[in-house]
Amino acid sequence: MKNIKLTIEYDGTDFNGWQIQPNQRTIQDEIQKAVKIMCRQDIKIYGAGRTDAGVHAKGQVANFHISSHISCNRFAPALNSILPKDIVIKKSIEVDKGFHSRYSAVAKEYKYIIYNDTTRSSILRNYSYYVNYNLDIQKMQRASKTLIGTYDFKTFMSSGSSIGDTVRTIYSLNIESEKNIIEITIKGNGFLYNMVRIIVGTLIDIARGKIQEKAIKNILYSKNRETAGHTAPAQGLYLQQVFY
Amino acid sequence: MKNIKLTIEYDGTDFNGWQIQPNQRTIQDEIQKAVKIMCRQDIKIYGAGRTDAGVHAKGQVANFHISSHISCNRFAPALNSILPKDIVIKKSIEVDKGFHSRYSAVAKEYKYIIYNDTTRSSILRNYSYYVNYNLDIQKMQRASKTLIGTYDFKTFMSSGSSIGDTVRTIYSLNIESEKNIIEITIKGNGFLYNMVRIIVGTLIDIARGKIQEKAIKNILYSKNRETAGHTAPAQGLYLQQVFY
Repeated sequence: MKNIKLTIEYDGTDFNGWQIQPNQRTIQDEIQKAVKIMCRQDIKIYGAGRTDAGVHAKGQVANFHISSHISCNRFAPALNSILPKDIVIKKSIEVDKGFHSRYSAVAKEYKYIIYNDTTRSSILRNYSYYVNYNLDIQKMQRASKTLIGTYDFKTFMSSGSSIGDTVRTIYSLNIESEKNIIEITIKGNGFLYNMVRIIVGTLIDIARGKIQEKAIKNILYSKNRETAGHTAPAQGLYLQQVFY
Repeated sequence: MKNIKLTIEYDGTDFNGWQIQPNQRTIQDEIQKAVKIMCRQDIKIYGAGRTDAGVHAKGQVANFHISSHISCNRFAPALNSILPKDIVIKKSIEVDKGFHSRYSAVAKEYKYIIYNDTTRSSILRNYSYYVNYNLDIQKMQRASKTLIGTYDFKTFMSSGSSIGDTVRTIYSLNIESEKNIIEITIKGNGFLYNMVRIIVGTLIDIARGKIQEKAIKNILYSKNRETAGHTAPAQGLYLQQVFY
């Protein structure tokens, strides 16, 4: 039995997210079907994180166990010849038996792209969040510093989620802007449901003056979702990298 | 009668090109239909250049004549609320009666994006040309210098085209690369049919060693399409800007 780790890039536009669901097109399902076509075995792949519908990945990680004589690095090109064009396996390697893409992960990095202009973009419509307000990037950058560190991030979790321990550590949060593109890169040991999207929405609300810059501390400490800003939409979000 | 100039961005993926054709989805047709819905008038819009199926535009220009009391700068937002999401009017202004988007143009700039990696990209599949050969960018850059200037570019015209005067001037041709992305920007007073795509294909063939770097002069002077490289595909090409 081999344990194979896949590094995966996908365009989330036409998927109903990572996780298998009946009668829905999902990334997990497409990869499992491709492995079945390739190896004639039903396997289950485990993803490092469940991305929602419309969310993209440059470096999602998944693993699965299989008995096969095919060498592990051959899985990537073989699966790519089967997979639809909006999924690509960047790499396939053999890992220790105990490796689990989700439980072995020590950190994840997400990127969020904002398209900030007076008119929408046609080319980036599925790959960025269009915001036509004037955004004060420096306000956003100053406020974001408050979120770096180990905190109870319950404020920044969608209210539907029932997870118990809501303490997470954000290692870094960088905001760069060039012309009409703002890129937010955030790395942490783990993220609550919709945490990145709510942080981004809150920072945007601060940058446009809807929420006061200095309110960010109280928002973080309130542990109340309603004090934070809106949830930025899925299409601007990219799972960039998973660290082990 | 007003003469209105539109600056247009579009995602060419789901279009059969700029120019109206029966039973095909085209950019020209979508904009004419939107003007009709907005003003209840049948108009004809003139584009600065006909882009092929799959080719994108960041700054296509078109103009049309119309009797309307609506101020010209209001056309952009009004049309954007009618147009499909893969077309956006960036700007609408009134221009002189004599202005014609195509005949008044003095220069055009195109960009071509190459994705050069060992595995394909899912996210950029419709927005770049995937090349998995090792490319020597410096060879490409040196060879491209030969093409700057005023020449008969008949070599770099698709053989189907029947245009008479094939002399054009290329003002600049820049090649930049960062990680696995190569961007070629080319500005000239006009371009023959498929000229940018054949130049890019030839530069790629030089960069991968299929065509000798020093052969570029003879290829240019041969006026024979068959001496040049392949035609790079539509999805990597962007009409960036039209100059007047």
